[in-house]
Amino acid sequence: MTRISAKILAIDTATEACSAALWQDGRLVSRYEVAPRGHTDLILPMVAELLAEGELTLNQLDAIAFGRGPGSFTGVRITLGVAQGLAFGADLPLLGVSNLQALAQGAHRVRKAESALAAIDARMGEIYVGGFALGDNGGDSAGLMISTDLEQVITPSDWLANTRGQSWALGVGSGLITYPELSAHCGELCTALPYPEAQDLLPQALAMWQQGLGVAAAEAVPVYLRDKVTWQKLPGR
Amino acid sequence: MTRISAKILAIDTATEACSAALWQDGRLVSRYEVAPRGHTDLILPMVAELLAEGELTLNQLDAIAFGRGPGSFTGVRITLGVAQGLAFGADLPLLGVSNLQALAQGAHRVRKAESALAAIDARMGEIYVGGFALGDNGGDSAGLMISTDLEQVITPSDWLANTRGQSWALGVGSGLITYPELSAHCGELCTALPYPEAQDLLPQALAMWQQGLGVAAAEAVPVYLRDKVTWQKLPGR
Repeated sequence: MTRISAKILAIDTATEACSAALWQDGRLVSRYEVAPRGHTDLILPMVAELLAEGELTLNQLDAIAFGRGPGSFTGVRITLGVAQGLAFGADLPLLGVSNLQALAQGAHRVRKAESALAAIDARMGEIYVGGFALGDNGGDSAGLMISTDLEQVITPSDWLANTRGQSWALGVGSGLITYPELSAHCGELCTALPYPEAQDLLPQALAMWQQGLGVAAAEAVPVYLRDKVTWQKLPGR
Repeated sequence: MTRISAKILAIDTATEACSAALWQDGRLVSRYEVAPRGHTDLILPMVAELLAEGELTLNQLDAIAFGRGPGSFTGVRITLGVAQGLAFGADLPLLGVSNLQALAQGAHRVRKAESALAAIDARMGEIYVGGFALGDNGGDSAGLMISTDLEQVITPSDWLANTRGQSWALGVGSGLITYPELSAHCGELCTALPYPEAQDLLPQALAMWQQGLGVAAAEAVPVYLRDKVTWQKLPGR
């Protein structure tokens, strides 16, 4: 990753945290704040600060990475909306990265974990969960956490019933903090990384960018996993 | 309004409808679609189409108008996120216009109503509601529907109990379709305008732009009226 010459902005508001990061030919700067209600107040000032520090305009970027979910319906939509708006005018490709992968990537960044179970509290008694392991091809993807099973939304008890004999070096994310029983499958529980951070979108985003996997702003899609929590379905009359 | 020489893009996803409109020195083109789940899929292609038809780039616009609410929490956030992203790169001012005002403006556009009661179904047994009347100063704001009372979120029965002796020429919006009893205070109920349309943000947006009332992308704020429907408060554990 450190050898990649590219300028990529990453943003994420999929969970209670709001974060942005800028990769500038090997130099990384980032912002992160836990602010459940302030996403739309925070994300653009963060972007503006990072670009100012890098003395860059949007037009000088190569791509924009965004947390494509899973996460809160509203949070994922905000991320996508801002990313689409930013990318549209400057005609930049968008790189959607899994928020669970970002958590696993954080586990590797902070604790050098070679495998991680990443889980986000999905509310309503469920978790978004996925397992990841460090890639070993020795190339630029050395250091990239690779998904080893399907990302899913599931109750903790169903997940435990389905998960036999598997284990991961580190457990990360709000899902494991809310349901510590899941960490029986982890060597250690890391409480220092409750939410995905934009800087941890960058390893995967850079790999995608090198492979030409960006999409046009209007074509970027979110991933919710759960398809039933929307404002149309709120309890009511 | 027809005399105003300006280029303003308007977008709205605050309700079940998604719409965009482009004002280009007196020429108006617009898109409108009812698509409760497809806002982030639709809004950017709409914007791209309108700009292409007008042979304009974002940088050639004077400002971006957006429906600032009230409406669904997610819908209002999407509108704001996209508007912020679009405005940021091109360094355009943002003009936030009430979605109730847009409904009232639509009542004037479609039916020449001189006064309108605008209500949006707010779910959970409540409505967003406000009264509007045609401005009469004879200047550029002739044709502009002006708010005559506070926009509020309220139950239909409380609104009826508080509203004595008032009447409006036309009732518009999903709130009046869901609760037709409210139209007892209206000369007529218009079912042809269930949702606000981006083109009806433009009269107010143009007036605001002429008065220098735009704000920077990072400073634009939504208006929810209701402050309790968020993904953090979903029923659950």
